[in-house]
Amino acid sequence: MSLPDQRSSLQLSTPLLRTDLRTRSKTCQHKAVQAGQTASWTGKETPDPKYGKHHFLHIDDFSREELWAMLETARKTKEKLKANDQSYKPLAGKTMSMIFTKPSSRTRISFETGFFKLGGHAVYLGPDTIQFGKREATKDIARVLSGYNELIMARLFAHEDIMELAQYATCPVVNGLTDYNHPCQIMADALTIWEKLGRVEDTKIVYVGDGNNITHSWLRLAARLPFEFVCACPEGFEPDAATMQLVQDSGAGTAVISHDAMDAVKNADVIYTDVWASMGMKEEAAARFKKFQGFQVDEKMMAAAKDTALFMHCLPAERGVETTDAVVEGRQSVVFQQAENRMHAQNGVMLHCLGLA
Amino acid sequence: MSLPDQRSSLQLSTPLLRTDLRTRSKTCQHKAVQAGQTASWTGKETPDPKYGKHHFLHIDDFSREELWAMLETARKTKEKLKANDQSYKPLAGKTMSMIFTKPSSRTRISFETGFFKLGGHAVYLGPDTIQFGKREATKDIARVLSGYNELIMARLFAHEDIMELAQYATCPVVNGLTDYNHPCQIMADALTIWEKLGRVEDTKIVYVGDGNNITHSWLRLAARLPFEFVCACPEGFEPDAATMQLVQDSGAGTAVISHDAMDAVKNADVIYTDVWASMGMKEEAAARFKKFQGFQVDEKMMAAAKDTALFMHCLPAERGVETTDAVVEGRQSVVFQQAENRMHAQNGVMLHCLGLA
Amino acid sequence: MSLPDQRSSLQLSTPLLRTDLRTRSKTCQHKAVQAGQTASWTGKETPDPKYGKHHFLHIDDFSREELWAMLETARKTKEKLKANDQSYKPLAGKTMSMIFTKPSSRTRISFETGFFKLGGHAVYLGPDTIQFGKREATKDIARVLSGYNELIMARLFAHEDIMELAQYATCPVVNGLTDYNHPCQIMADALTIWEKLGRVEDTKIVYVGDGNNITHSWLRLAARLPFEFVCACPEGFEPDAATMQLVQDSGAGTAVISHDAMDAVKNADVIYTDVWASMGMKEEAAARFKKFQGFQVDEKMMAAAKDTALFMHCLPAERGVETTDAVVEGRQSVVFQQAENRMHAQNGVMLHCLGLA
Repeated sequence: MSLPDQRSSLQLSTPLLRTDLRTRSKTCQHKAVQAGQTASWTGKETPDPKYGKHHFLHIDDFSREELWAMLETARKTKEKLKANDQSYKPLAGKTMSMIFTKPSSRTRISFETGFFKLGGHAVYLGPDTIQFGKREATKDIARVLSGYNELIMARLFAHEDIMELAQYATCPVVNGLTDYNHPCQIMADALTIWEKLGRVEDTKIVYVGDGNNITHSWLRLAARLPFEFVCACPEGFEPDAATMQLVQDSGAGTAVISHDAMDAVKNADVIYTDVWASMGMKEEAAARFKKFQGFQVDEKMMAAAKDTALFMHCLPAERGVETTDAVVEGRQSVVFQQAENRMHAQNGVMLHCLGLA
Repeated sequence: MSLPDQRSSLQLSTPLLRTDLRTRSKTCQHKAVQAGQTASWTGKETPDPKYGKHHFLHIDDFSREELWAMLETARKTKEKLKANDQSYKPLAGKTMSMIFTKPSSRTRISFETGFFKLGGHAVYLGPDTIQFGKREATKDIARVLSGYNELIMARLFAHEDIMELAQYATCPVVNGLTDYNHPCQIMADALTIWEKLGRVEDTKIVYVGDGNNITHSWLRLAARLPFEFVCACPEGFEPDAATMQLVQDSGAGTAVISHDAMDAVKNADVIYTDVWASMGMKEEAAARFKKFQGFQVDEKMMAAAKDTALFMHCLPAERGVETTDAVVEGRQSVVFQQAENRMHAQNGVMLHCLGLA
Repeated sequence: MSLPDQRSSLQLSTPLLRTDLRTRSKTCQHKAVQAGQTASWTGKETPDPKYGKHHFLHIDDFSREELWAMLETARKTKEKLKANDQSYKPLAGKTMSMIFTKPSSRTRISFETGFFKLGGHAVYLGPDTIQFGKREATKDIARVLSGYNELIMARLFAHEDIMELAQYATCPVVNGLTDYNHPCQIMADALTIWEKLGRVEDTKIVYVGDGNNITHSWLRLAARLPFEFVCACPEGFEPDAATMQLVQDSGAGTAVISHDAMDAVKNADVIYTDVWASMGMKEEAAARFKKFQGFQVDEKMMAAAKDTALFMHCLPAERGVETTDAVVEGRQSVVFQQAENRMHAQNGVMLHCLGLA
C-alpha cells in the first residue's frame, strides 16, 4: 500500500446534518471527529491481535488501495454466494452484535443475512433491547460486547456515539449509519457503479436533494478516489463545509455544490437521490418540500444526463416526492441491485476489518 | 401430476372475515383474490429459475397430489429431525425473511426453528422493524428482500398485501397468516390427522365456532381433498360464501354450514375450534360470547362425536370460553402435537416451494 | 457423586425482594418454592429421556460436585472457544427459546452468542412477541415450546412463573433471572473468582448493597460450597430470611448480615455490588439512595479489603451511585471478565442440563 493514508483532521463545520441529529443536539459539533480521532484504532484498550486491524467508521479512514481491496473482496464474495458455494465460510463460529437505536430494515437484513451466509451469526439488538445511551455507559457496552462478539455493527443517531464505541471496543466496529455519515451505503453504491459502468473513478456522480449523511460519505469517498462529485441542493441544504474541504485538500476527487439541478446533471454518469425528509420530520416536511421544488429526479432530469446514466436511490423511496415511479421503475434504475449490494459490500468491509480478506 | 390443477376463480363475497380486517377496511373485497390471481406465480418479474416454482398462498393453489407430496415431505423431514440426523441440511446457506405485522409466537418459533434445523437462517422482522405498509411500497419491499433472501414468509393483516408481495417477489412467498386464510395451520392439522387417524380423506371434520380464516383454509383443502367439512357456527358468523362455493364446484370434498353444533358433531372424526374473539376485539367480545352460547366444545360435545374423535385447536386456547380445560387436557386432545406439526408441515411446504423436496 | 443432594425445603419469608416483584404482587410468598418443589424435575409430564436430567432453577438444586462439574465444563468450553476450535459443536442442530418479559442485553447476547458458538440456534422472544402471562396459559407455552426446542431459557418477573414453566416443560428450563434469584450470574461470578483467585471455596465474599435476587443466589451457592458470605446492607434491605436459613442448615458455607459495610469488607477476597434501584423504581430511588449512604463501593472501601481483593458488579453500573468510576476502571475490577463469563458459565450449565457434558 504505497498511497499515503491521509486521515481527516478537520473540525466539521456542521450546519446541515439531518434534523434527527439537529433536534437531538443543536450545537453538535461532532467533537469526536476532530484531529487525530478518525484513525482506525483510537481506543485506550489494546486491540486484541486476534481481530483484524480496522474499525470501519469513515470511508477515508482507508487508503484508495484499501478501498479497492474491500470492493474486490465484495465482488468475489458475491460471486461465491451466487454460485451457492457452501465451502466458503470465513465467519464460521464468529458473531456480531448489531445495535440499532432506530429500526432499519435494509441495514438489518443485509448485515444479518450476509453474516450468516459467510458462516457466522449476527445478534439483532433493537431499540428496546439495548437502550443505547440510557441504561449503561457507552464505554461499558463497548467492552461487554467485545467479550461476546468478534464484531460490532451500530446504527446510531449521534456520530460521537460510534466514535466512543470504537474507542473502547476491543473488536472492530462497523458504522451502519449515523446522522453524520453512511459509509456502508456508499461502498454498496460504488460496487454497483463498478459492476454497471465498469469503473467508479473518472465518473461524474450527481447527488440531487438534501446534503445529508449520504453526501458526507460520498465526499469522503471523493477524498480517496478520483471522480467528480456534484451535490445539487437548495440553498441552505448544503453538506458539511469541513467535509467538502476534505475533498479539496485530498488531491483525489473533486466536489462542487450546485443549486441548479438540471444544469448539474449534464453529462452525469449517475444521478443519485434520497428522501427529502426523514421519518421524524413531519412538521418540517411541508416547508422542506416547498424549498426542494426543482430537485425532483423525474424523467426529464434523467434525460438531461448521459443516456447511459444510472439512477440510484438508497431507499426507501417516496414516489412523487424526490423522484417518480417512472424513474424508479425505468430502464436506468439500479435501485434494487444497489440494495442487494449493501450485503455484498458490507461482507467485503467486514472481512477486511477482521483480517479475513 | 395428472389431476387438474384447478385454480380458484371466484370473487369472495367476504362478509365474515375477522374483525381485525373489517376494522381496517370495512369495504375490503379481497380484490386481489379474483379471477386468475391465485395462480402460484402472479408476478410481473420473471421468477428466478434457481428458486423453486411456487408461492404458498392458498392451499388450493396446489393439486391434490402436490398437497400429498408436501405432507409426505413433512413427515419424512420430521422423522429425520426426530432421529437428530445432522447430515440432512437442505437449506444450508439459505435465508428467509419473516415479516410480522402482528407478533405471533407459534408462527415465529416454528418457522425460525424449522428453518434452522434444516440448515438455514430466518430473519425475524417484527412489527417495529419493517413497518410494513408504512415507510415503503410493498412492491419495493418484495424486490429488496428477494435480493437478500431465498424465501419470504409473511404474517399480515390484509390478504391483498400478501398477494402484492408475491406479485413482485422473485423468490417464493409463504403465507404465514392473513385475515382471510391460514394455509400453514391447516397443513399442520392435516399432518396431525394423518398421523393420528391414518388418513385425512374420507373423514368428517367439524369446526365449531367462528367462520374465520381457519375455516377458509379448511374449505380450500376440501376443494382439493375428498373429505366432509362442517362449519358449526352461530348465524351471522358463517365463512365466506365464495370460498364455500369453491368446494361445491371442486368435485373433491363437501362443505356444509350448521347452526346446531351438537347435531353437527355426530360421527365426527375431528372436532376443531378456535378463539371466538381475536385480541383486537375487546368491545365486540362480550356481544360475541352471548351469540356463541352452545358452541363451546366441552366434554359433552366431545362425547357426541366418535369415541376416537380428535380434539384440535390452533391455540392459544381460552379455557372456559370456546372450550374447557378438561377437553384441552383430555385423552382426545392433540393440540400440542398439532402445534409441533406447524414446524414439520411448514418444512414440507418450504422445501416444496424451493424445489428441494 | 457422594455428597448428599440436599434440596431446599423451606418456605421463603420473602420480605425483601426487588420492588418489581413487590409492586407486582405484594403478598407474593413464592408459593412454588416450597417443600419438595425445588427438585430438578417437578413436572407432571414425563421428561423426555432424550433430553438431559435437569432444569437449572436454583443453584442449590445441584450438589457441590455437580456445581463444580458445571464450572469445569464452562472452563473447558471457554478454552475451546478461545482457541477457535470449530470442531466442537455439541449443540449442533439444537434450538433454544429465550423468553424475556423485560429486555436484558447481557442475558440475551450471552445466551444467544454462546448457543451459536456451540452449534445451535437461540430464538429471541422479546416482551412483545410472546406476551408471557397475557395471551396464553403458562402451562401451554411450556408444552408448545417443548415441541419446537431442546431448551427454554426464561428471564421472568415472578419466580412462580419459571417454576410453572419448568413443571410443564418436557425439555430443560434455565432460569435467566427472576425477581427472586439469578443463578446464571452467580455461576459466572464463581467462574471468574476461580479463574482470578484460583479458588472459590474458603474465600470471603462481601456483597455491599441491596439484599436482592443476586444475594439469594449467592446464599444458595453458600448452601452448597464452603465459603464465607457477608451481605452488607442498610437495615430493611436484608435478603430473604428463609434463604439465609438455607445456608445455616446446609453445613456448607456461612452467611451473615452486616449493617456496617466498612467493617464487613475487612479481609474480603471479593467486594461485590449491584444497582441500588432497578429501572422501574424511579419514585423510590431517591428515598433509597438516602438509606444507602455508606454503602457505596469506593476506593476507600476497596482499600479496606485484602490488597488482592476483586471488585465485582453484575452490570450495568451507575458510577457515582453504588460505586465509582475509579473502582470500575481500577486494577481490582474484573467486571468485564465477569460479563464475558456469563456466556461461558451458561454454556457449562446448558451442556449439563442437556446431558452433553
